Amino acid sequence: MVTSQQTSRHMSSQGRSNPVEVLKVSATSKPVAVAGAIAGVVRTQQRVEVQAIGAGAINQAVKAIAISRGYVAAGGIDLVCIPSFIDISIDGEERTGMRLLIEPR
Amino acid sequence: MVTSQQTSRHMSSQGRSNPVEVLKVSATSKPVAVAGAIAGVVRTQQRVEVQAIGAGAINQAVKAIAISRGYVAAGGIDLVCIPSFIDISIDGEERTGMRLLIEPR
Repeated sequence: MVTSQQTSRHMSSQGRSNPVEVLKVSATSKPVAVAGAIAGVVRTQQRVEVQAIGAGAINQAVKAIAISRGYVAAGGIDLVCIPSFIDISIDGEERTGMRLLIEPR
Repeated sequence: MVTSQQTSRHMSSQGRSNPVEVLKVSATSKPVAVAGAIAGVVRTQQRVEVQAIGAGAINQAVKAIAISRGYVAAGGIDLVCIPSFIDISIDGEERTGMRLLIEPR
């Protein structure tokens, strides 16, 4: 499962505040599918945020990012990943997950 | 456990070929300890490579990278992470792991 929503507001290192498309990755997400989604959003919007909770989901997310680097490299985009912690509310319960912001270097 | 060795040779995006310190992270590694090791190597050698095999190890590695960003940010270093796949031989058996190259942006 990869769900997408455009609600996150991220202050990039350049000081811009843009809404960033968010892809939610689970432990059962297919890395190749997520990689395709990452590449698609990066091509149109420059950056994308991947959110994952738990080791299985983070594992799939990191694999997806590695694959997506290959997808966009032909277009001259050198993707990097910036991880941070994020508190996500699921069914009213707070859980700590990882946010992986993906941007051209 | 965090083990360190200096055997990997990585071609950086700037085209330099430098030996890069390698930190091997396991599922039982403490993210704060790994983060300290990452920050230490980055401060002296600009970059470090983290290797992890399996979801548990990759999870700890990503947490460590997120923490290490805070450690070096005060020194004006904006760390990014570049994931790729790596084949690692363990006891004569080939396993696929993740390499996370960590560099200043």
